[in-house]
Amino acid sequence: MKLFKKVVIVGTGLIGGSIGLAIKKKKLADTVIGISRRRSTIDLARKIKAIDSGFQGLSAARGADLLILAVPVNTLVKLSPRLSKITGRECIVTDVGSTKERIVAKLDRLFPNFVGAHPLAGLEKSGVANACRCIFENALCIITPTKSTNKRSLRKVAALWKALGSRIVFMPAKKHDRITAIVSHLPHVAAFSLANSVPANYLKFAAGGFKSTTRIAASDPQAWAQIFIANKKNILNSLCIFEKNIDGIKSAIKKEDHAALIRILKRSQQIREKLA
Amino acid sequence: MKLFKKVVIVGTGLIGGSIGLAIKKKKLADTVIGISRRRSTIDLARKIKAIDSGFQGLSAARGADLLILAVPVNTLVKLSPRLSKITGRECIVTDVGSTKERIVAKLDRLFPNFVGAHPLAGLEKSGVANACRCIFENALCIITPTKSTNKRSLRKVAALWKALGSRIVFMPAKKHDRITAIVSHLPHVAAFSLANSVPANYLKFAAGGFKSTTRIAASDPQAWAQIFIANKKNILNSLCIFEKNIDGIKSAIKKEDHAALIRILKRSQQIREKLA
Repeated sequence: MKLFKKVVIVGTGLIGGSIGLAIKKKKLADTVIGISRRRSTIDLARKIKAIDSGFQGLSAARGADLLILAVPVNTLVKLSPRLSKITGRECIVTDVGSTKERIVAKLDRLFPNFVGAHPLAGLEKSGVANACRCIFENALCIITPTKSTNKRSLRKVAALWKALGSRIVFMPAKKHDRITAIVSHLPHVAAFSLANSVPANYLKFAAGGFKSTTRIAASDPQAWAQIFIANKKNILNSLCIFEKNIDGIKSAIKKEDHAALIRILKRSQQIREKLA
Repeated sequence: MKLFKKVVIVGTGLIGGSIGLAIKKKKLADTVIGISRRRSTIDLARKIKAIDSGFQGLSAARGADLLILAVPVNTLVKLSPRLSKITGRECIVTDVGSTKERIVAKLDRLFPNFVGAHPLAGLEKSGVANACRCIFENALCIITPTKSTNKRSLRKVAALWKALGSRIVFMPAKKHDRITAIVSHLPHVAAFSLANSVPANYLKFAAGGFKSTTRIAASDPQAWAQIFIANKKNILNSLCIFEKNIDGIKSAIKKEDHAALIRILKRSQQIREKLA
């Protein structure tokens, strides 16, 4: 099912590369062009057939009918003014950023056909070498239209994500950032902090529990530093909630209050058991 | 390779049941007896062949040449005086408790042939229904001898864990508790607190990151409440370190200090990448 003629992906890393693989496999476009700062990334993306051809300059975005921005959130905002002068007014522009409020506010003004999106499909691994078209299958993709979002562009971006196998949820960017602060950004702060709490000579005693709680501590520092700053207010709020929960356990331990601990841990167990 | 005649396992849950399965599969004993409070647990343990026969009373421990205590840490300390009157002086006694200092101090006095052990092989699932002899293969088993530990008993308990496929490390109970506070108990506090930080209506947006950081939040509340209290001092210390690391990220976010965040996250990434 062809949806686009020329798709241009800016940033052919884990997510950009995986989108390219899926679009090509499902034949959703005539051609898929990749733009990356690094020649080696372009070469690898071409080799694994994530893109048909690749370029280091933004001018390769000319003539696209779909532009997908798949670079870290700051880079995305930084490159957009230049890209808006290259792409035509008809070009549909979307992104995959993990934070939405700032991005949507800026890109809505720059591109007449912008539609913000965020596939909840990241991995702790980064780079096109880890790309896989499977990561979007059955994943949630949050799309964040605004009052000014063009309806046809919205339908086409939604059709793309459906074609990639994702389940779509529409919500305002503000709500997206509040939710992801809790369910995604907070666990990353916790995982990074857990990893940094372990002395090097204790690492060999780390078993399954430590490994799974810190899996995402191996995530791309560049991408996550930018997310943390972009979603500052919500993340600081979610950290307050987290610290209150930590304090609850801490105070029960101090008082050796077994009954209070059982109450707290039963609640977490019930919550966690709701997830697969 | 037969190591024991009559092995008695007190507590045929996830760990006790898995030990039974492995001992029987590898023919390490003539007979494996299970003791459990609940008839249904005994029936299931027999059904899956984790034990040859099972009883609800502690007197079934009579005549054992190996007694394995696989109940939560408080229960273990509570049952031991009675068990010490049932088992003969020759009986080797070992445990699988997640904390060691209190247990080893008490059981060393009660049993002439006690050897403390802790296989780092827990799961977030509990109960004999989830037992699997595979969980000890390639896992680390920490054995915590004291000055009074009988050498022959120590050799036999080590031989058992080797036969179950585990890698053995010997260390004092005090050191064990310091290490596990950081690499195991702290991640549990974090996971329980993360799960409790998410409002019910946000749960459907939880993706891979949240799922893996909170996997162990589904762990048995009874067992973990007891571990938290038994290893109180070390866990409170490890929480101080964790909170300092959280504060480091928090303060960098507040100041929008991108360079500081990169430094912190790169360190966590390097630490995490050392683990498989």
